[in-house]
Amino acid sequence: MSDDERLARVALSRLGEPGDPRLTALVAELGAVAVCDYLREERDATGVATDVAARLHGLDPAGDLERAHREGIRFVVPGDAEWPTRLADLDRCPPLNGRGGAPLGLWVRGGARLAEVVDRSVAVVGSRSATTYGTGVAGEIAAHVATAGVTVVSGAAFGIDQAAHRGALAARGPTIAVLACGVDRAYPAAHRDLLAYVAETGLVVSELAPGCAPTKLRFLSRNRVIAALSLGTVVVEAAIRSGALNTAHWASLTNRVLMGVPGPVTSAPSEGVHELLRTRDAALVTRGGDVLELVSPSGSFTQLPVRGEVRPTDRLSETDRQVLDAVPVRLPAPAGSVARTAGLADPTVRAALERLRDGGFVVAGPAGWRLAGSTLPDPGGPAP
Amino acid sequence: MSDDERLARVALSRLGEPGDPRLTALVAELGAVAVCDYLREERDATGVATDVAARLHGLDPAGDLERAHREGIRFVVPGDAEWPTRLADLDRCPPLNGRGGAPLGLWVRGGARLAEVVDRSVAVVGSRSATTYGTGVAGEIAAHVATAGVTVVSGAAFGIDQAAHRGALAARGPTIAVLACGVDRAYPAAHRDLLAYVAETGLVVSELAPGCAPTKLRFLSRNRVIAALSLGTVVVEAAIRSGALNTAHWASLTNRVLMGVPGPVTSAPSEGVHELLRTRDAALVTRGGDVLELVSPSGSFTQLPVRGEVRPTDRLSETDRQVLDAVPVRLPAPAGSVARTAGLADPTVRAALERLRDGGFVVAGPAGWRLAGSTLPDPGGPAP
Repeated sequence: MSDDERLARVALSRLGEPGDPRLTALVAELGAVAVCDYLREERDATGVATDVAARLHGLDPAGDLERAHREGIRFVVPGDAEWPTRLADLDRCPPLNGRGGAPLGLWVRGGARLAEVVDRSVAVVGSRSATTYGTGVAGEIAAHVATAGVTVVSGAAFGIDQAAHRGALAARGPTIAVLACGVDRAYPAAHRDLLAYVAETGLVVSELAPGCAPTKLRFLSRNRVIAALSLGTVVVEAAIRSGALNTAHWASLTNRVLMGVPGPVTSAPSEGVHELLRTRDAALVTRGGDVLELVSPSGSFTQLPVRGEVRPTDRLSETDRQVLDAVPVRLPAPAGSVARTAGLADPTVRAALERLRDGGFVVAGPAGWRLAGSTLPDPGGPAP
Repeated sequence: MSDDERLARVALSRLGEPGDPRLTALVAELGAVAVCDYLREERDATGVATDVAARLHGLDPAGDLERAHREGIRFVVPGDAEWPTRLADLDRCPPLNGRGGAPLGLWVRGGARLAEVVDRSVAVVGSRSATTYGTGVAGEIAAHVATAGVTVVSGAAFGIDQAAHRGALAARGPTIAVLACGVDRAYPAAHRDLLAYVAETGLVVSELAPGCAPTKLRFLSRNRVIAALSLGTVVVEAAIRSGALNTAHWASLTNRVLMGVPGPVTSAPSEGVHELLRTRDAALVTRGGDVLELVSPSGSFTQLPVRGEVRPTDRLSETDRQVLDAVPVRLPAPAGSVARTAGLADPTVRAALERLRDGGFVVAGPAGWRLAGSTLPDPGGPAP
């Protein structure tokens, strides 16, 4: 991409709202230079330069880049080695809540290379008002996938986002915070240190130019970047109006893997996730391994099916198990009585009892058969 | 069905194991009279009557029926008005864990008519070692569907089963307990009163003749009856080796609706349910309404989609919302500053601010605009 185009994108990233679908569509079609030229000449009915034109004239994109550079911030645009090409999927999606299109560029802070770290990445998002259950599970999942070298993408918010970043950091894995404000700002302010840690080992990323403040609309815009950067999105807890459901919607629109962690049906922060699982074909995940399996090439992370403990009786034949079930726990019973309880023929039961005795499952005494490992009750003690 | 056939089925119900697929298949093909005749003549290589033949000769089916009648127990067979015809689906399923086929007959205790009460019915099953979460949800769901006139079918076990029956009883709805022992027995013994209540308003049902004891195999056999009697099965909590998963499997085999209630992924009793939701296409349900919708004719129980609260700002245009987001909470800011934060043109913002003031969202003062309903901080108080 030419320097002019890069500068024009810097200017537009400050002038317009991120993810304004009219702007992203125009830039995708004509390029940022042409769009800037057009806007710069815009005049109202009386021939006076419009407000937009005036603001565009007042911008200093080259200075912006220089000041950003001094703060360790770079502006990555399509065509750069670091640009994640999968963001182009956003140009093929319809707008959602008035936002859409690929970002004009991304402001990036941190030592990692963006395209490299998102190559294998998963978004872990959810409610700010999360429960300890939710933050616990989010942290576990993030740590698990980070240990496997998968980057955890999230939004640095309170609750699930914070737990996801922390889980990845604790596992010394890469993590990316995508903000709805300039990457030089800490939002929420309480996460200043968290964002500094994220920038050290991973990246802090935003569509918004340095200095820009977060707004609700910018969060909606940011959510589409979180979803599109990642191979899949895991929603851990999300109440019915949670922004995480917006991220989930973007994951579906961009054909990413959408995953949800269930929780108690009595817990409001799990309601939105259950809706995703019911109505959006989100995949139910319960642990990091499930997530890895879903975002990895087929077969490379297949897990063994979950099995309960193997019990000694598992290897018994059906008949032997049936007879064993009919043997009393404590008070011995004759073989005929066992046969009646089991509903099996006498000779069958007698043969089975001998096999079970050889296997150590039952013991025989003068009064008949009882389970091994059980003792007669103390005749002087209380009734069992 | 002839009296002979009924008596032959009584005899076989005492002689064989319930759900023995060899027996159920033979009876389905030849009828119980022919099977009894064949077994009665069976002799071993030396010409001596086999054990089975001897036991068959010792039975007294007519006496069995009479004794049962005196205890308020009847034996319902195919062809009876009370016989639920949908049980025939079991004859079209492959065996599972060595059990299969339609019951030869059902021993029934209670005043309700079996076919009538199962016409609209749902099984609610789960772990004996349930959590208070699980029993709470099971009880809620059972009460909700029972209030709508849907019969709750379960197994009278501790935990989820008990909660399901109680929920239905509390809602004065019909409920059916399907036992793995004779309907004259209370298993578990602690549920003697519960079973008595169930029989008063609903039914206690079993394949096993009065007096028979429960065994593990009989529980497996019983589970297929629970699943096949109902239009659908809801699994509330089930550890990986829970018998409720066997019931779930039978629900799938008989093409009933299989439903699962999710829970915390950290809770072992929810693990089995999550596996069902992941691998068996069980439908995720979170409340009684979900269950009613799934087991009712299309459209008759459709619920409104879950929505969050409606907020006053919901009806604002996108631009107005964008401007509102940029208005400071406490310290007033001039319109130009709001415009810069919002990233919108000045005239747009000024017009929006006036609309927002008229709507009561913002207030204007000499120093500019701030959100309505917020007050200036007390200058003498601590910093906010």
